[in-house]
Order: sequence, then structure tokens, then C-alpha cells
Amino acid sequence: MKRTEISALGKVAFVERLTEPFTTDLDSRIRQGIGDDAAVIDRGGWLEVVSQATMLEGIDFDLTYTPLEHLGYKLVVAAVSNICAMNARAEYLTVSIGLSARFSVEDATALYDGIKRATDQYGLSLIGGNTSASLTGLNLTAAVIGSTTDEELTLRSGARNKELLCVTGNLGAAYLGLQLLEREKRVLAGNDVSRPEINEEHAYILQRQLKPEARVDVLRQLREAKIRPTAMIDVTRGLASAALHLCRRSEVGVRIYLNRIPIASQTFKMAEEMRIDPVVAALNGGDDFELLFTAPLDKHQELLTMSGVDVIGHIVPASEGAALVTPDGGEIRLQAPDWTARVEAEGAE
Amino acid sequence: MKRTEISALGKVAFVERLTEPFTTDLDSRIRQGIGDDAAVIDRGGWLEVVSQATMLEGIDFDLTYTPLEHLGYKLVVAAVSNICAMNARAEYLTVSIGLSARFSVEDATALYDGIKRATDQYGLSLIGGNTSASLTGLNLTAAVIGSTTDEELTLRSGARNKELLCVTGNLGAAYLGLQLLEREKRVLAGNDVSRPEINEEHAYILQRQLKPEARVDVLRQLREAKIRPTAMIDVTRGLASAALHLCRRSEVGVRIYLNRIPIASQTFKMAEEMRIDPVVAALNGGDDFELLFTAPLDKHQELLTMSGVDVIGHIVPASEGAALVTPDGGEIRLQAPDWTARVEAEGAE
Repeated sequence: MKRTEISALGKVAFVERLTEPFTTDLDSRIRQGIGDDAAVIDRGGWLEVVSQATMLEGIDFDLTYTPLEHLGYKLVVAAVSNICAMNARAEYLTVSIGLSARFSVEDATALYDGIKRATDQYGLSLIGGNTSASLTGLNLTAAVIGSTTDEELTLRSGARNKELLCVTGNLGAAYLGLQLLEREKRVLAGNDVSRPEINEEHAYILQRQLKPEARVDVLRQLREAKIRPTAMIDVTRGLASAALHLCRRSEVGVRIYLNRIPIASQTFKMAEEMRIDPVVAALNGGDDFELLFTAPLDKHQELLTMSGVDVIGHIVPASEGAALVTPDGGEIRLQAPDWTARVEAEGAE
Repeated sequence: MKRTEISALGKVAFVERLTEPFTTDLDSRIRQGIGDDAAVIDRGGWLEVVSQATMLEGIDFDLTYTPLEHLGYKLVVAAVSNICAMNARAEYLTVSIGLSARFSVEDATALYDGIKRATDQYGLSLIGGNTSASLTGLNLTAAVIGSTTDEELTLRSGARNKELLCVTGNLGAAYLGLQLLEREKRVLAGNDVSRPEINEEHAYILQRQLKPEARVDVLRQLREAKIRPTAMIDVTRGLASAALHLCRRSEVGVRIYLNRIPIASQTFKMAEEMRIDPVVAALNGGDDFELLFTAPLDKHQELLTMSGVDVIGHIVPASEGAALVTPDGGEIRLQAPDWTARVEAEGAE
């Protein structure tokens, strides 16, 4: 039988091949099916928004240095962030966990403590899920249901030529946090390092990796300022990947000014120490859980003065492609690493 | 740090400990949270029903003898069956898969072909999900959203004294199918046996294991006969486990007549050949996806004549406990194997 490696096809084409048969004959109430941060169902007068987030041990987290409370919290944040990216409010959560005999009651309780802190923080109710045995490791899947309105719903596909490209918070910190944890793990290899000592200086980037937050605060700010994003996506696999998804769905191109990409001073410092390019961390790192969105050009002044939001570029016609603009005015084609390469590298059995 | 094995606590107490903190301060629209086959949200005029089903390689399926098309189909069936157990209709589905580098594009396509056949069969729309890398094996989680009404919603908790206990279809066949597949695997160990030859005689029990169905047909029958089950649960880990869950949530006891438990002739035959007690297979086997429900006593005659439904016992006060009644009138306390023992046995790393 023919065997095609997933990496040979590439992620986008792979997912399209799998889901293409499901794009026809959709229920007329489905406003958005596969292909956005969440699905949208028209409930008549309001819109239901549904998403799923999965985190697998050894791929999405390493329990050597990830406290289980933080992991539970982060799982909920990942699910809520998907709902935020639709400009919707997360309301209900179900969590399924598969755990092997390695895990104790205390471990599972710590995980659920983190889930509880997050549901309290984001005003969600845990309504279901299941707990089952796994052969190896810990598998987590959260499904989240939220709601929004026609007036507020923001898809990936709404960006138009000349609009502003904005991003919340700062990027790359979580990636540097991960690199720091990996370094500590190597240093301490062989010892029990379930909680490496956290240096005060490192606190920010570690927190960004271990206990990120979903940007419900910025959505509130935008709502209060009466700015409705035209397209939005959350940044979970780096700015490059997010921007390319947005361009693809909106059928537009983009220019991102390299020197406008927000990077925290702690990220710069750590990047220097570790000899990592901080811009590469922002473009290709993961786990930022920031929001990338477009907005009408006439909101420029308001967005420039809004805290927690940076205007980093603008939309151009699709024919002009997606590119980074260097300080000297040069252009670099925007590319994102393919996660399928990660399957190959990390998933080998 | 203290370490309590999950098996020491037992499944019910374990899940209760994890979810107890979430049972307070629930949104007033939550009609049913954790503790049933699905959660129920009151949407004003209709009820939304939400559930999740997880299947993990090495625990819930063995790809040595499970065709991926069938696995995809079964995942959807498991999710739909949860919704059926609420007397609701499944409508929307999201599927998250984690797959390692062992899997090819063709493998994933086969899996989704099965998902598609099931969504067509059950009239569901696949609206989302995600595909990610896993370190080892295949992890599947489906979330399903359905709907029902106040008049039709059936919880596990509605059973009352003297009511009839009924079950759909027949039990134990899927378990025997699994035993047969395991036997073939042992016989052919060392060879490539991705599709063991299926003997005509074995077709029924193999189909019950590899390609089960959710009992939407029986729900329709009940609706047409204007019989509303008072409590319901789907039988996925054997009759004993299902009956005990139902008793626990309804705060009642039960008597199940051993000789009324429906077992197919093919199951009997295979059980004899494999020296397995077919009643034990029905009580403790898995993957039947039949429905166990209670109904008012005055529906006895109608239920006795309904095809695909058997009256197997009746509800008694909680003080009388849950028991099997032998043909000679003796009573055996009903017990269910604890899945946490399975974690210990199968989940060792």
C-alpha cells in the first residue's frame, strides 16, 4: 500500500485533505466549520462558538519541569484563547484526561486544582469530560463552548486590503521560557528536577511559558473603544504561522515591520544570553496566546494609544504576498515552520 | 510527597475527588453537570447536550487488528451513544487527533473516511477539531453537541422504585469479538496481521467489536410508542457497571434476572468455544453501546412486545441494594470491575 509521509504533504494540505469531504452538505446553521480557531453555530439571535484544545505529554509539555497545577491552568487558557480569537466569551468546558499508572491521586488533584483556578479566573463552568487509562503519559483534551453575536463575531477570513495588523502583548517570551527550562533540565539531568529553582530575573519568561493567560482583557478594551477587529487569530505557534493563516483565509497579503514586533526586555535579555535571535523566537516560537488581528485604517490613532496593543503592519493585496519589512526597507518572504517536521523529529518511535 | 494510587481510591471516589470543587457555583443554566453521559445546558426553550469520548491506542484499541476506517466510525458511535443516553439527538462533532510519525497520510485518510461514514449515518456535521503530533501512538477525542427538550431529556438519576429495567439489543458480543481478535493476534504473532481473515461464522461478534452502532433506532421506536424512559445510560463497560451507575445516581437498588439478559446465539457459541462465561461477558465486557433504561411499570406490555428491547429486571429501594437474581431465585450482589485496575494492569510504563 502506498505510504505518503505527512511531512511530505505539509500541514495545511494534510488537514485539507482530511477535512475536505466534510465541507459539503453542512447544516445551514453552521456559520463557520473547520478552518478557524473555533466553529460557529447560528442559534437564532446568538452565535454558539465551539473549540477543542489538546495537550500531549512529550510534545506539548514536559513534566520534568511543568508543575501539574500550571499544566491544568494552561490547558484551559489554550481552550479559552481559541474562543477569544473569535471575539467571543468562553462559558462551558469539558476536560478529558488519559493518564497512565505513573500518576497518583495527588498528581491528578494538582492538575484539577489548576483547571479550577483557570475556570475561576475566566468565569467558566466545568460541565463534563472523562477520565481514562492511558498506556503511556498524560493526554489532555479540553472542549470549550462560548457565545457571541453577529455584531462581534470575528473570523480569520475578514481581513481586507489596507487594514492595520495588530498584536496584543509581546511575543517570544514563552519560547525563551521553554528554552530556559530545557537548559535547566539538561544541566540537572539525572536528578529530580520537578521544580527547578526559579531565578527572579527569569520569572517573567518562565511565567509566560508555564502560566500564560488568554487575552480577554484586550477584547474588553477593544469593545469599550468600539473597535471591532475585522479578522483575528490567536498566536500559539508563532507570529509567522498566525499571520499566514490569517492571510490565507482572508485571501490577502501582509507587510509586517520587523522593528515593530513587540518583544519584552526580559525576552531580549534571555535571547542574548542563550544566543537566540529574539525576532525568530517571536516569529516561530509558541505558546504566546496573544491575539493577532486586523482593524480598519481609521482606527489607527486609537490603536496606537491603546495599552497592550501594537500596530505591527498592514494588509496588502494577495498578489503582493506576505513579507517582513526590515528597518532598511528590504522585504523578506514570511515563512512558518511546518509542525509536521516536528512530528518527524519528535514523534519517532 | 504522599502518593495515593488511583486504584486504592477506586474510580468513583477518584472522579468525585477531582470534580467535587466544580460542583458549586454552577451557572444557573446548567441543568446537568459532571456525572451523567453528557452535560445539559438550558438554552431557553431547548436543551443543549454536550459530551466527549476519548479513545487511546493500546488501551481502547489495538491497531494490529482494528482497521482505521472502523476506528473512526467507532469513535463517532461512542460520542453519539453518549448523546443517545440522554434521549437527545447528536448534531455537531469536533474531532481531535494526535498521531505519531508511524502514521501516514493514507492512514489518517482511512480514519477520516470512517468518521465521514459515521457522520453520514447519524446525520452529524463535523465542525472542527485539531490534528497534532503525538510522541507515541494514536489519541482520539471527539466532542459532540446535541439537543433535546424538557419533555424528552433522560438523566441517569430518574429511576424510581418498582420501575422496569430494560436494555436494547444484546450484550457481550463485542467482548467476545475482542477476545477472538486477541486470539488471532496471538496465533499470528510475528506476522503482519493488520486484517485477520474473518470467518463468516464470526462476522457478527467481530462487527459488534469493530463497527458498533449507536441505538438511535430504539430511541425513535420509544418516541413513537410514547414511552419516555425515566433514567438511561449507555452500556460501554458492561451491564454491571451501567446498572450500578444508574442505581447510584437515582439512589435506588435493582434486581436483574440473569436469564433475561439478552445474549446473541453467536455470542453463546463463541463463548463456549473460548470457555468464557457469556453472562460474565455481558456483565463485565465492554463496547456494546446498547442503552440501559428504566420505564414506568404500566409500560410493561408494550415493552415486552417491542423489538430490540428486553425487560431484564426492576428497580427496588436503595436499601435493598443491587443484585442479580438467579433462575432458582437466589441473589448475587452486583459488582463491577474497577477500570482503575485496568490502569494498573495495562498502563504500566
